[in-house]
Amino acid sequence: MDDAVFNTAVEVFKVDREQGASELARQALKIMGECAVTCSAVTTAELIATLEQRVQTLKDARPSMAPVFNLLKRWKARLSTYADKELKQARVALAEDAIELIKLSEDAVTAVAKNAAGFLGSGKTLFTHSLSSTVMALFRELQGRNVQAIITESRPLNEGHTLARELAKLSIPTTLITEAQIGLFIDQADAVVIGADSLLPDGSMINKAGSYLVALAAREEGVPFYVCCESFKQRAEEMGEPVLESMDASELSAPVIDGVMTKNCYFDITPAHLIKGWIDEIGVRLS
Amino acid sequence: MDDAVFNTAVEVFKVDREQGASELARQALKIMGECAVTCSAVTTAELIATLEQRVQTLKDARPSMAPVFNLLKRWKARLSTYADKELKQARVALAEDAIELIKLSEDAVTAVAKNAAGFLGSGKTLFTHSLSSTVMALFRELQGRNVQAIITESRPLNEGHTLARELAKLSIPTTLITEAQIGLFIDQADAVVIGADSLLPDGSMINKAGSYLVALAAREEGVPFYVCCESFKQRAEEMGEPVLESMDASELSAPVIDGVMTKNCYFDITPAHLIKGWIDEIGVRLS
Repeated sequence: MDDAVFNTAVEVFKVDREQGASELARQALKIMGECAVTCSAVTTAELIATLEQRVQTLKDARPSMAPVFNLLKRWKARLSTYADKELKQARVALAEDAIELIKLSEDAVTAVAKNAAGFLGSGKTLFTHSLSSTVMALFRELQGRNVQAIITESRPLNEGHTLARELAKLSIPTTLITEAQIGLFIDQADAVVIGADSLLPDGSMINKAGSYLVALAAREEGVPFYVCCESFKQRAEEMGEPVLESMDASELSAPVIDGVMTKNCYFDITPAHLIKGWIDEIGVRLS
Repeated sequence: MDDAVFNTAVEVFKVDREQGASELARQALKIMGECAVTCSAVTTAELIATLEQRVQTLKDARPSMAPVFNLLKRWKARLSTYADKELKQARVALAEDAIELIKLSEDAVTAVAKNAAGFLGSGKTLFTHSLSSTVMALFRELQGRNVQAIITESRPLNEGHTLARELAKLSIPTTLITEAQIGLFIDQADAVVIGADSLLPDGSMINKAGSYLVALAAREEGVPFYVCCESFKQRAEEMGEPVLESMDASELSAPVIDGVMTKNCYFDITPAHLIKGWIDEIGVRLS
């Protein structure tokens, strides 16, 4: 993977909004694994220097995604341990490390889903917002266990439509609503289960815009709000203040009018005090 | 206006979602005024009987709209007072009554806007949801007074786009957001001003779905939430339990998927305890 190919991969990675934070982190590891094997280097030292630089480029491309930061950090920590190895051996070992970390991330998601399914049990109506691979794994765990779903369309990209199709494949009866109707339907749910892009040190959560509204409505109507995410989502202090990414306003298909500024912020913060429980690969922590 | 023309007018009235509750009430009075002049009748008694029946038909067409109920009730109360009049005189008097009530309704909206503008004052950033003719009248009152607006697109029909165009004409700087971003932008506002379709006896408000979420976010962020509507919006006890109208799910342009039920409920209820003040044609009542 030469500079040009890497830079193209970074550009794609930077604007990818179809994959969630965990999937993007695994994508980043996949890119680094390929770089380890194929990037230009004549010495192990040169390889390590190039890879360190590329890891930083990938981290900077998605600054608000905690799992990208965390998994790349884990992988980067291995680099120096191969300083004394022969170039070819170092390349192979680093590629294997990337694969191992990808597996670790996938296993963590599976464990979160199993823990959430065990905790929530059968026969429940679950409310969710946006599309989370972890929540999707939870629904797969609950297939055939008399579960129902209430989901939002999730403007502007309507990830809710994708989720609806996936739930239909699992034969899970689903009600699809606009974000505007969150307050009307939340009391029909036994619980809210929602993924996260990042968890902040105080337990607050960064997730798709609208999650905060779901949490406010859930509290008002007495519906417990659970965050389902693996611990790789925990945002390290060293990441600094979170930046809530905005995307191109044209995604909203709003008319362009002089004096009217259209905003398309993708993420909001749900404060910890609105969260009833955090479910990760270890277990369930209630507030 | 013979039966066929009246029935067509009722059908249009029934599905009209471009006009707010007050405008629909005036539309109903306009229809009844025309009926009074042109409907088939050879005696005053026959005229009154026909008009009573038609008033009921119009009321039943929009059962959740308090001003339709209230203004038609006011007009209907006049019918019996003309029982002794000559047919032609009765027709003219009833048409004039309809015009008078339309004027009363319009004047009430203007008075609400003036009261709200006086209360809120200059230099404020106001957050609103959906399109309310009363809130629009308020913005006209505040034109040139350094006011800014934050407004939602208001899915599914995007009345927010219409509002954005109107605000641009008034040179009021406007930020347009999705409903999902309500929680992200509410704290940039000095106050929420919102219209209502109906006010319930306990002070709760029926309005476009999403209003409840705005109120929840406003409370959480310490932004006062004001309802601006004339007293014709007060729902009478005799109207019974409110019915929250739903519309065709196809308006959401969601994919049609087996096992997925798409919902398009137009209204939600904002409980009185989330409302900081009610502004009507008389003045401002704070909670």
